[in-house]
Amino acid sequence: MFSNLSAGALGLPLVHTTAIDLAAAHGFGGVDPDPEYFRSLGSTGAVAEHAAEVRERGLEWGMAGLPVPLDAPAARFREALVDLPAALELLQAAGVTRVGTWIRPMHDSLDHRQNWRLHAGRLSLVAELLADAGLRLGLEYIGPKTFWSTERFPFIHGLREARELIADSGATNVGLILDSYHWYTAGESAEDLAGLTDADIVSVDINDARDDRERDEQQDLDRRLPYATGVIDLAGFMAAVHTAGYTGPVKVEPFMKELAEQPVDEVLADISARLDRAVAGE
Amino acid sequence: MFSNLSAGALGLPLVHTTAIDLAAAHGFGGVDPDPEYFRSLGSTGAVAEHAAEVRERGLEWGMAGLPVPLDAPAARFREALVDLPAALELLQAAGVTRVGTWIRPMHDSLDHRQNWRLHAGRLSLVAELLADAGLRLGLEYIGPKTFWSTERFPFIHGLREARELIADSGATNVGLILDSYHWYTAGESAEDLAGLTDADIVSVDINDARDDRERDEQQDLDRRLPYATGVIDLAGFMAAVHTAGYTGPVKVEPFMKELAEQPVDEVLADISARLDRAVAGE
Amino acid sequence: MFSNLSAGALGLPLVHTTAIDLAAAHGFGGVDPDPEYFRSLGSTGAVAEHAAEVRERGLEWGMAGLPVPLDAPAARFREALVDLPAALELLQAAGVTRVGTWIRPMHDSLDHRQNWRLHAGRLSLVAELLADAGLRLGLEYIGPKTFWSTERFPFIHGLREARELIADSGATNVGLILDSYHWYTAGESAEDLAGLTDADIVSVDINDARDDRERDEQQDLDRRLPYATGVIDLAGFMAAVHTAGYTGPVKVEPFMKELAEQPVDEVLADISARLDRAVAGE
Amino acid sequence: MFSNLSAGALGLPLVHTTAIDLAAAHGFGGVDPDPEYFRSLGSTGAVAEHAAEVRERGLEWGMAGLPVPLDAPAARFREALVDLPAALELLQAAGVTRVGTWIRPMHDSLDHRQNWRLHAGRLSLVAELLADAGLRLGLEYIGPKTFWSTERFPFIHGLREARELIADSGATNVGLILDSYHWYTAGESAEDLAGLTDADIVSVDINDARDDRERDEQQDLDRRLPYATGVIDLAGFMAAVHTAGYTGPVKVEPFMKELAEQPVDEVLADISARLDRAVAGE
Repeated sequence: MFSNLSAGALGLPLVHTTAIDLAAAHGFGGVDPDPEYFRSLGSTGAVAEHAAEVRERGLEWGMAGLPVPLDAPAARFREALVDLPAALELLQAAGVTRVGTWIRPMHDSLDHRQNWRLHAGRLSLVAELLADAGLRLGLEYIGPKTFWSTERFPFIHGLREARELIADSGATNVGLILDSYHWYTAGESAEDLAGLTDADIVSVDINDARDDRERDEQQDLDRRLPYATGVIDLAGFMAAVHTAGYTGPVKVEPFMKELAEQPVDEVLADISARLDRAVAGE
Repeated sequence: MFSNLSAGALGLPLVHTTAIDLAAAHGFGGVDPDPEYFRSLGSTGAVAEHAAEVRERGLEWGMAGLPVPLDAPAARFREALVDLPAALELLQAAGVTRVGTWIRPMHDSLDHRQNWRLHAGRLSLVAELLADAGLRLGLEYIGPKTFWSTERFPFIHGLREARELIADSGATNVGLILDSYHWYTAGESAEDLAGLTDADIVSVDINDARDDRERDEQQDLDRRLPYATGVIDLAGFMAAVHTAGYTGPVKVEPFMKELAEQPVDEVLADISARLDRAVAGE
Repeated sequence: MFSNLSAGALGLPLVHTTAIDLAAAHGFGGVDPDPEYFRSLGSTGAVAEHAAEVRERGLEWGMAGLPVPLDAPAARFREALVDLPAALELLQAAGVTRVGTWIRPMHDSLDHRQNWRLHAGRLSLVAELLADAGLRLGLEYIGPKTFWSTERFPFIHGLREARELIADSGATNVGLILDSYHWYTAGESAEDLAGLTDADIVSVDINDARDDRERDEQQDLDRRLPYATGVIDLAGFMAAVHTAGYTGPVKVEPFMKELAEQPVDEVLADISARLDRAVAGE
Repeated sequence: MFSNLSAGALGLPLVHTTAIDLAAAHGFGGVDPDPEYFRSLGSTGAVAEHAAEVRERGLEWGMAGLPVPLDAPAARFREALVDLPAALELLQAAGVTRVGTWIRPMHDSLDHRQNWRLHAGRLSLVAELLADAGLRLGLEYIGPKTFWSTERFPFIHGLREARELIADSGATNVGLILDSYHWYTAGESAEDLAGLTDADIVSVDINDARDDRERDEQQDLDRRLPYATGVIDLAGFMAAVHTAGYTGPVKVEPFMKELAEQPVDEVLADISARLDRAVAGE
């Protein structure tokens, strides 16, 4: 696995080329691809050239966002499918292999069974289109009760159900985005991660939680940097990720606005060190 | 349909024979069967005789509790199956045709899919055993958010999922226990009841809600007598029940402890009048 | 309900305008729409005009084919979705309200569960897109064992499973194409049709079967005209369709090549009379 | 893994003690338990003593039959549950850890979805009762088309669906009975066995097929001894079983009546040698 600079996940408004420079400067192993930047290059040839340069700097690609809203109304979902090949062509040209999205853990009108069928059907279709383009899809389940309990019908908010949804899709190119914050807020343990293999994981996020809140009071968008509070058992989490033989990106997504107000080099040096610790498995 | 005296649902500690006398005296159309009393009679012949007397007094049987805990550990569920034929024999001897239970709307370790499979499998088996004894089974979904949101995995807490579970069971002798309180707290409307037939409904409960609480703040065990506050649209609810052609018992289950402290004849005269209003469809 | 001239189902190579003339001449109540012809008219205005003329001649529209292959590889399915709005716009302009397709009753590599998920997911998406255009979708299950047993994994080949698939799709604009030939070859009876309503049926086909073959030996593409052999209980079948309150088209699909070799007026006079008998419910 | 003498599977009418003597004499690694014999011993103490003697002779227990008919009518299924604890007590006393049954691959009235729900629900319940007694349950899928195509609704007849049923049961003590004959007739390859672990396999059967019949013409009850015809790729099959790290019994179930007419020592010497070859992985 490798540490990955995801400026978006850090809330840092970096342009793509700057992010690459900073990723290289601070010793990250990878950087997130930027589909908008790829598009701006004007041709798949130019994208491939750009990607070659990034590789030459020792950086792998992290994960791009899935450009299809899985649970949108059918008309909007269809439109996203219309546009999909152009997006996939750029990602393929760049050699990106991972895209990801998250599962909204509740719905106000679709109950669990209805929402499951919606997701399973859409997921199966999208996964096959991604597979045709050599891409894997990561799905992130969302753990905080303060989020999934806010609408009438709670939906997937734990690992087991996320894995069953993936199995139900019949796709072999779909896996998890494992985020220690969701794993913790979902009340899961290292044991729940047993049996996972590299094929089951598309991306890994490490975050810590506030130490002045109980588990069920934690907010999805108010987290702490990994190893900051020790609320989350990151050692146990990362040990399981290592045991799984995971080979992909590890990033931080703390939803801490103050990061954007600090000197970027300080922030990235800190983040890089924290990720190195996780990747080393200490 | 007919008004039904369910002493248990009213929280009144009446012995079975007294309940029958009071049901007749206050003009109820039916009264709940009492399996314990049946057992005490010592023979199916005596039970049949007792039932004939109840019928002669113009009373139909309401609904007995299902003597099988659908979601118990397998060992305990098995034990209940061992004992089931003896219980069913007494109910059959008495001419009882309705038994019922409720669906616990959350679970701390089984997620929605796991809990669904548990219920669907057990329900299917129990329904077939009940059908062999000429009994129908009513299932009650539980609506209040203050209840289903208290554990890690919310489960069925609305009409549509309850109906899907019943369909999934493959049984033709399973229907709903429709309670206006759950219908209201689940955020449902008269439209949601459209299309129901008598075969879909095994029992009907009418209750009102406190008028000093929002819908999502209502407590399962703190209700009001039907038509007391007007919070719940009982006219719309009962109109849908009439449209369905429902022919079974209608009862009140207010969870108001103070009823047991009032003169029983006053309480029953009041309840009977409220039920008559519902049955009349005014 | 009304008798419908479907030249395609009869194997008659009639151009659309001729089919309309013949439908009117032979007293059919409806005629199939022809999307190719609509397209050739060049504008939705012209299509609407054409449709008005057809209506003025006393003809309703039968059913168009669904222009989306439900079980195609994802890439081809996506392409069909790309093209769908243009097709739907023409159908809408013409006032067509019914499109239909059939369910392939076996698969060589997808087992029943996998194929179910494929169909349920695709169906749900397509149904919502059709609903946005005011269209209903009819699904035809295929009954002959000589067909469903020819590959490794038999799939839906009976009414109950077809209805469950429709329910699973969550769509309210999907119903059955009921064909007496499939109903017979699936070993079903009038009882199996009980409970159906007009909302459950999008189209009705009546055909008879060869009288020199057992049920399980009947071939999908070798049938007889309705009432020809009496093998199929068309009286029972149509009685159930009447009981359902069905209001849509009834057509014949005999797969008899010899029809194309006979004088078309003779053929259509005969077909029209047979359909009138069915519609009259004799 | 170890070679196992299953007299029943060989069609040899051996009393239990003779089977044990012969298993020891011919170098088998295990022998099937005989619940009837256990019962005849009169006490769990005597059963435990008997089991200790068998172990002392170097023999492990193979697999007992599951004493519950998974797809029986509910009343008969319930009766089997009533009797189950007594049967499990004897198996536990003997130290037996494996019981097994097969999945009937078709049904005349329950379609695939209905039959699935029946099996999943019953299986889940039975598995939990077995787990309470320390037992694992093996499920055998049946491959021959000449069998699954004989009734109206084919059911599970391949590995993937069998594994999904097991996953659906939610049980961790249920696995497969892998029979090379079903694997071959189901059209499966060594690749289909990839990813299996010891926890997924409860028993292994090796058999060969007639070489004068096509795959789809093979009969379930007319097989050949392993390595006899070479029709079935037993090398590939056993290589996958070895890769899975399988630790349980391997037996032969040829359904060849002529075996019972041959000298038993000759038959068992031959069977033992064939099993040794498989266990050795040559």
